[in-house]
Amino acid sequence: MSSSPSVPPPPAASQLDKKSEAWSALFSEPMSELVKRYTASVFFDKRLWQADIQGSLAHADMLAAQGIIGADDLAAIERGMAQIRQEIESGAFEWKLDLEDVHLNIEARLTQLVGDAGKRLHTGRSRNDQVATDVRLWLRGEIDLVVGLLGDLQRALLALAEKNADVILPGFTHLQVAQPVSFGHHMLAYVEMFSRDAERMQDARKRVNRLPLGAAALAGTSYPLDRARVAATLDMGGVCQNSLDAVSDRDFAIEFTSAATLAMVHISRFSEELVLWMSQAFGFIDIADRFCTGSSIMPQKKNPDVPELARGKTGRVVGHLMGLITLMKGQPLAYNKDNQEDKEPLFDTVDTLKDTLRIFAEMVGGITVKREAMERAARRGYATATDLADYLVKKGLPFRDAHEVVAHAVKTAIGQGVDLSELPLEALRQFNPQIGEDVYEVLSLRGSLNARNILGGTAPEQVRLQIGRHRARLG
Amino acid sequence: MSSSPSVPPPPAASQLDKKSEAWSALFSEPMSELVKRYTASVFFDKRLWQADIQGSLAHADMLAAQGIIGADDLAAIERGMAQIRQEIESGAFEWKLDLEDVHLNIEARLTQLVGDAGKRLHTGRSRNDQVATDVRLWLRGEIDLVVGLLGDLQRALLALAEKNADVILPGFTHLQVAQPVSFGHHMLAYVEMFSRDAERMQDARKRVNRLPLGAAALAGTSYPLDRARVAATLDMGGVCQNSLDAVSDRDFAIEFTSAATLAMVHISRFSEELVLWMSQAFGFIDIADRFCTGSSIMPQKKNPDVPELARGKTGRVVGHLMGLITLMKGQPLAYNKDNQEDKEPLFDTVDTLKDTLRIFAEMVGGITVKREAMERAARRGYATATDLADYLVKKGLPFRDAHEVVAHAVKTAIGQGVDLSELPLEALRQFNPQIGEDVYEVLSLRGSLNARNILGGTAPEQVRLQIGRHRARLG
Amino acid sequence: MSSSPSVPPPPAASQLDKKSEAWSALFSEPMSELVKRYTASVFFDKRLWQADIQGSLAHADMLAAQGIIGADDLAAIERGMAQIRQEIESGAFEWKLDLEDVHLNIEARLTQLVGDAGKRLHTGRSRNDQVATDVRLWLRGEIDLVVGLLGDLQRALLALAEKNADVILPGFTHLQVAQPVSFGHHMLAYVEMFSRDAERMQDARKRVNRLPLGAAALAGTSYPLDRARVAATLDMGGVCQNSLDAVSDRDFAIEFTSAATLAMVHISRFSEELVLWMSQAFGFIDIADRFCTGSSIMPQKKNPDVPELARGKTGRVVGHLMGLITLMKGQPLAYNKDNQEDKEPLFDTVDTLKDTLRIFAEMVGGITVKREAMERAARRGYATATDLADYLVKKGLPFRDAHEVVAHAVKTAIGQGVDLSELPLEALRQFNPQIGEDVYEVLSLRGSLNARNILGGTAPEQVRLQIGRHRARLG
Amino acid sequence: MSSSPSVPPPPAASQLDKKSEAWSALFSEPMSELVKRYTASVFFDKRLWQADIQGSLAHADMLAAQGIIGADDLAAIERGMAQIRQEIESGAFEWKLDLEDVHLNIEARLTQLVGDAGKRLHTGRSRNDQVATDVRLWLRGEIDLVVGLLGDLQRALLALAEKNADVILPGFTHLQVAQPVSFGHHMLAYVEMFSRDAERMQDARKRVNRLPLGAAALAGTSYPLDRARVAATLDMGGVCQNSLDAVSDRDFAIEFTSAATLAMVHISRFSEELVLWMSQAFGFIDIADRFCTGSSIMPQKKNPDVPELARGKTGRVVGHLMGLITLMKGQPLAYNKDNQEDKEPLFDTVDTLKDTLRIFAEMVGGITVKREAMERAARRGYATATDLADYLVKKGLPFRDAHEVVAHAVKTAIGQGVDLSELPLEALRQFNPQIGEDVYEVLSLRGSLNARNILGGTAPEQVRLQIGRHRARLG
Repeated sequence: MSSSPSVPPPPAASQLDKKSEAWSALFSEPMSELVKRYTASVFFDKRLWQADIQGSLAHADMLAAQGIIGADDLAAIERGMAQIRQEIESGAFEWKLDLEDVHLNIEARLTQLVGDAGKRLHTGRSRNDQVATDVRLWLRGEIDLVVGLLGDLQRALLALAEKNADVILPGFTHLQVAQPVSFGHHMLAYVEMFSRDAERMQDARKRVNRLPLGAAALAGTSYPLDRARVAATLDMGGVCQNSLDAVSDRDFAIEFTSAATLAMVHISRFSEELVLWMSQAFGFIDIADRFCTGSSIMPQKKNPDVPELARGKTGRVVGHLMGLITLMKGQPLAYNKDNQEDKEPLFDTVDTLKDTLRIFAEMVGGITVKREAMERAARRGYATATDLADYLVKKGLPFRDAHEVVAHAVKTAIGQGVDLSELPLEALRQFNPQIGEDVYEVLSLRGSLNARNILGGTAPEQVRLQIGRHRARLG
Repeated sequence: MSSSPSVPPPPAASQLDKKSEAWSALFSEPMSELVKRYTASVFFDKRLWQADIQGSLAHADMLAAQGIIGADDLAAIERGMAQIRQEIESGAFEWKLDLEDVHLNIEARLTQLVGDAGKRLHTGRSRNDQVATDVRLWLRGEIDLVVGLLGDLQRALLALAEKNADVILPGFTHLQVAQPVSFGHHMLAYVEMFSRDAERMQDARKRVNRLPLGAAALAGTSYPLDRARVAATLDMGGVCQNSLDAVSDRDFAIEFTSAATLAMVHISRFSEELVLWMSQAFGFIDIADRFCTGSSIMPQKKNPDVPELARGKTGRVVGHLMGLITLMKGQPLAYNKDNQEDKEPLFDTVDTLKDTLRIFAEMVGGITVKREAMERAARRGYATATDLADYLVKKGLPFRDAHEVVAHAVKTAIGQGVDLSELPLEALRQFNPQIGEDVYEVLSLRGSLNARNILGGTAPEQVRLQIGRHRARLG
Repeated sequence: MSSSPSVPPPPAASQLDKKSEAWSALFSEPMSELVKRYTASVFFDKRLWQADIQGSLAHADMLAAQGIIGADDLAAIERGMAQIRQEIESGAFEWKLDLEDVHLNIEARLTQLVGDAGKRLHTGRSRNDQVATDVRLWLRGEIDLVVGLLGDLQRALLALAEKNADVILPGFTHLQVAQPVSFGHHMLAYVEMFSRDAERMQDARKRVNRLPLGAAALAGTSYPLDRARVAATLDMGGVCQNSLDAVSDRDFAIEFTSAATLAMVHISRFSEELVLWMSQAFGFIDIADRFCTGSSIMPQKKNPDVPELARGKTGRVVGHLMGLITLMKGQPLAYNKDNQEDKEPLFDTVDTLKDTLRIFAEMVGGITVKREAMERAARRGYATATDLADYLVKKGLPFRDAHEVVAHAVKTAIGQGVDLSELPLEALRQFNPQIGEDVYEVLSLRGSLNARNILGGTAPEQVRLQIGRHRARLG
Repeated sequence: MSSSPSVPPPPAASQLDKKSEAWSALFSEPMSELVKRYTASVFFDKRLWQADIQGSLAHADMLAAQGIIGADDLAAIERGMAQIRQEIESGAFEWKLDLEDVHLNIEARLTQLVGDAGKRLHTGRSRNDQVATDVRLWLRGEIDLVVGLLGDLQRALLALAEKNADVILPGFTHLQVAQPVSFGHHMLAYVEMFSRDAERMQDARKRVNRLPLGAAALAGTSYPLDRARVAATLDMGGVCQNSLDAVSDRDFAIEFTSAATLAMVHISRFSEELVLWMSQAFGFIDIADRFCTGSSIMPQKKNPDVPELARGKTGRVVGHLMGLITLMKGQPLAYNKDNQEDKEPLFDTVDTLKDTLRIFAEMVGGITVKREAMERAARRGYATATDLADYLVKKGLPFRDAHEVVAHAVKTAIGQGVDLSELPLEALRQFNPQIGEDVYEVLSLRGSLNARNILGGTAPEQVRLQIGRHRARLG
């Protein structure tokens, strides 16, 4: 296990140099050009280069600590990797299709730079465990960024909620006016959703942050690797406990994409509302011009492009989830080439989610709330009818009977084209003689809003309590 | 807020009784028969009846504790619910399409049985928060059953693994013979997968086990409800903190279905392998007759129906996941009728997953391992070629060079139609002079297997350690 | 090949009778009860009974014509099937789980009724080609029903379009007011969609209507079957030309479900608009009470349940499509048990689509158009700005310059809170001196509408032409 | 409508030049950089440039023919477009993010080159109908390429089928040996699938090849456009008959992607079989080295990367289908920005399908059939048991009884470890006394194969007939 063996010099050309001729001595012809392009991944997986170098260095460090390679080999590898890092960052690195993927590109360059030490790096390792490690390292970092962006978006929503805690919005069910709610309360519903998304990301992170390295091709290796050391160097929470599973498991990618899908579904719901609210029919908000576009033909148009596009991009992420699931379905163990197809959907999911969260966090600050329009709309639709029913219940009517009494009252009010609060007391008393002057307080939007003063309710007092709680949570 | 008001008697027929005439006084015509069938959910949501009663009792208990209904009302509701429970269990309960769903069916019957107290039950509650609570209570129970079944399946796999820890199976990558692995080790890969599935179920459970009740229709309620008390009664981990979110959130159903999808994807992979292994070409296992079927035309057939069908049912659960996501995409807040469509996919996902896990736990015990066939197959395909390369590395060759040397040796062996271990020493030494007599130990399947004796590796010693760890974990 | 052989009597109990004991003599134990329930399909595939009998009769007729069975056998089979048909229709037929599926249930009963002739029916046939034939026959009939219902829905839309050809609706892009359109024109957009759906159904029908029978288990049969005769008897357009493909092909189910998905996507778009239009914010339409429901808590509510639920059911059908695709992905030839899972998604797709089309055709007749509200809304949002730009182009300005000129004018009008048509001529002329008095005709909604009088345009004259064309097409 | 108006000169800077400042005079601030990148499509939609120019020229030609622009304008536009075409082909064209998409990039350059004539091009047109036209034109061309590639693949399969019409392969159901089939027959099953795919592509093409231009933004236009002329110039089969539908319809993209999904599902099934057949366990085929890769760690490996990767890429296309459907679900009319997300999935579907078909057509020629291995495998598994049952039926036994008799015989043969054909006649006669010496012909693989000589059956004679039919069909 010495790194300076007395054996004859290695063949002048290594396996990697000859890949354009044939995969190995076993192969009688080079790969067809068509196949090379079809199977190569370097043009998308090169984004893993930092994780690949980080993983290789941790592996080399352990190989040296275990005496599997020499200290001089380790030093050479570290030196070579430092240069490669620099070359990639400066754009000088030449990515080669012939070398298939990010792993072989970096390893081949390393061997060019440092010779045999580079050839020793792959000891006790296979591309199967290497790529699984790279993707996990990379995704762990991206999850942390996503969680940060989810936090930014929540903070932006909290600021909007705080400013508009007292603004009355017609709450809808079935898109029909239901009951008045605080606009701030409505924003907090999205804070809840995005905070659940962050929870799910953190749960997924636990399962992402485990180390496959050491699984080698599929069965482990005969070298005395110290997997725990590698995990510690890479700050991973544990080691994959079964080598077959380690190289074939893509659960973590699917679980992350599921969580991302839910986040995009939430974005799509918020987008739907922004688009509705900005329509002339609703007129509840305006979105700053810098987030909108016009029309090539209609000079008067200002379109809410960002929420529309984000709503559309939900499909993209859902599609990636479906693609990943289809990919894994029915695959026998251990690694199959199908799995190479896990990367592009995963990368694009991360990009789409991050871009969308970033732009939404910014756009929320560009929303102008038109409080008069909201309140005016809340006055249509008999939004306080439930309050009248509750009023009657407090007078002793069973709820079901009160409900029916109010339905009669609403029918009458519709017939007269007035709101319940515009019916004179004597008219109201015809529906139930226990109705008194105090009913008008109950029938006002503000009274209705303030009355829902229980945990999770829409009363501005509750909204402010929740804002405080969220701020404390987000730190 | 007295339960014995001095007000005039309620209308003889309550709202619920008249549903076949019109929804309420507000409606001028009854629902069309076609619409009634299209929108009714009672024929599938009646499975929620236990959760519905449980939730209603917790709500009533709290209403009484808060003085919103009287103690006599509570007693009447409890008495009525006890009878309804009995009626449903005995099959005597008459489910009515006219009453739309499980909630109105039970409430209408309660009112028949106990009068006004029944009508008071819905105080401070809406079907929106009621149904969300029911589904969460029900799903929580189902998750616990699923976790139990995942445990049963893991235990069955552990028993099979233990019995076959020393059995040599050809490990495949790309379905090509790669390296020898322990059959027990292979089974443990699935134990890892199903244990992750259980982890994900537990994570989802945290988010399922929160209380929507108190959100009412969408905005909270003006009654002084004690939501924490209801949550405690129902053993829920917390209270949904935003009423709009509480009634519109179906994340929990999607997250559960995602986790179920991953579990089914694992089942599909295992199934694929069982089907392969039972084919005459592989001949690695036999599955007990009681899990197989024959053919209506071919008298010799014994088909592995269960794994095939389970593989097929993966599509079913994936479809439900996609259906649920499509359902929620772009929905404005708060509750929309679209959400009624969340139930059937969720119910069928639970049924499919539970049935499949149950049958697999049983079937694993009916697998006969044909160890000779497995070992024979491992001897085809030069499964110890990597061991030879590692042997050369330990002699000082850089790994990449050793890899190329072995490729030459394999080519020669293929040409002669023999295994590497069948090449005489002098032939092997032509590829590298450092090869010694000890190489034959390395080239044996058993030697290869035992050599992979690191954490997560396939050596039987490791397999037994892992079995111990899993048993301790499963309790 | 005589039907009155001189051989010893057949075993008293046939294979089918003993299925509860074991599949065949080859099996050493009966199927586990769990497996029986897991693998049985009779409770959902019994809906294929008519197709199954129809297919069997055509097969038997051909067997007799070819001399493979005797005329007396055919007569016995026909007599038995007539009785079975009657038993099923009257509810007297006893479906048995032990007999797995519709095919064995019917065949076993036939053999009970007519003895050996019944046992001869399966000659030259397998369940593989039988089930494929049954599903195709059944689906062909359902496609015809679906096409009929798509026609009914188109007719209902045409009636609504005709009544409202002159009603001005604000056309939206990005949900922002764009240009005035005829409400009738808007309805015709859906007629186009549903007519394409019908086209796709007809295209799919061509590929559904091919005969698998004769493929037997997978390889064809050694009996001299006349497949063309069977196809002709069943009115099928052709014969599947490859036996392996015949028993494994489920393209037709996926293609149908794709077409159904598109139809549901169209329904979801129409539903989205109906829900929007019925909201108080838009207030463009009312939907008759019989298609709406109220709220258990809010007495004033009238909710557009049908379009909401239909929008939700889109997810269901999309899910089925994804399930079917997942099912088929990666299946080796020929028949695998996975395929049994094709039925429930297909059946539910058909049910959902038919129910939805039926209810929509009825509901369209229950839509009340509020023309004043529509026209009022069209007057907000500068819907005729493009007309002003076109006016300037006709005066000689390049379109791009005209667009910019009008953007200035709109900005001014917004600043003054007026419509373009409310700006005095001199104000308009400040933006371009060529503007004359005739501009006000161009700036009116009605003028704008009538001006778009080209093929496919929104002018009422075009709308009426299109209605005529569609009526002629629908016959 | 003169092209040389006497009006004052247009503003020095046109709308398009100032897009980096603000969308139009209506906007008070420029688009945020983040938004610009989020909403821009030029980096993927520039692939539509040929269709865009083609569509613009057809539009300009019609504008001139109708006298809407002058002949000199048309000449200028044609000259400018010729130069732009050259610039793009040579790589000299500078694509600008600020100009959002392919349409504005080309139009802005045209205006730079030819001045006012360029600004007149957009007369009577909107980006909404323009982009719909471009995508349809482009997709029509791609469909033609796909159909061609499907033909190439079918031809390659026919060549392989012809060469191996007499080769005996064990036909499988449930991956269990079922009956012997001709390898050529098996290949023809895939020819059937790919020919159906081509049919579906042609059906989709009819609905792709319709002209949206003339729909303008959504409502048609007030210019007297001759849409039929444009359709004829572009060789389109018809004109979209409703302007709202024309700009919002993306059915054609979904229908194409559905058809592409089915083609990929077929590829995935073929791939599954190739991977199985190339495994050491089956050993039925070899795939030429140029389509395979090795392993970075295991020197003996030769992996069937292409079929594995193709199987994986099925997920990709399924994902795109799901994404597109999600995108359209619930969108109100007419155009929404969500639709911009239709392009990338569609483009990638086309690329993936074309690449895959091309590589498969080539790879099929690189398949070596190992006929001895196939035939040897067919001799395991009692593949002629059905033939024995059929033999007994021909002796007069009802099929169901014959089936049971043979099950007994197979059980005995299994017990003795021999094939049915290896049982002596007296042993066979114990199961049924009518069995004679001629049974051995029936029990031979070749006899079984040749016996299935009916339309669609596996007899080599039928295979050759089918090859002839397909060749005639493909021309």
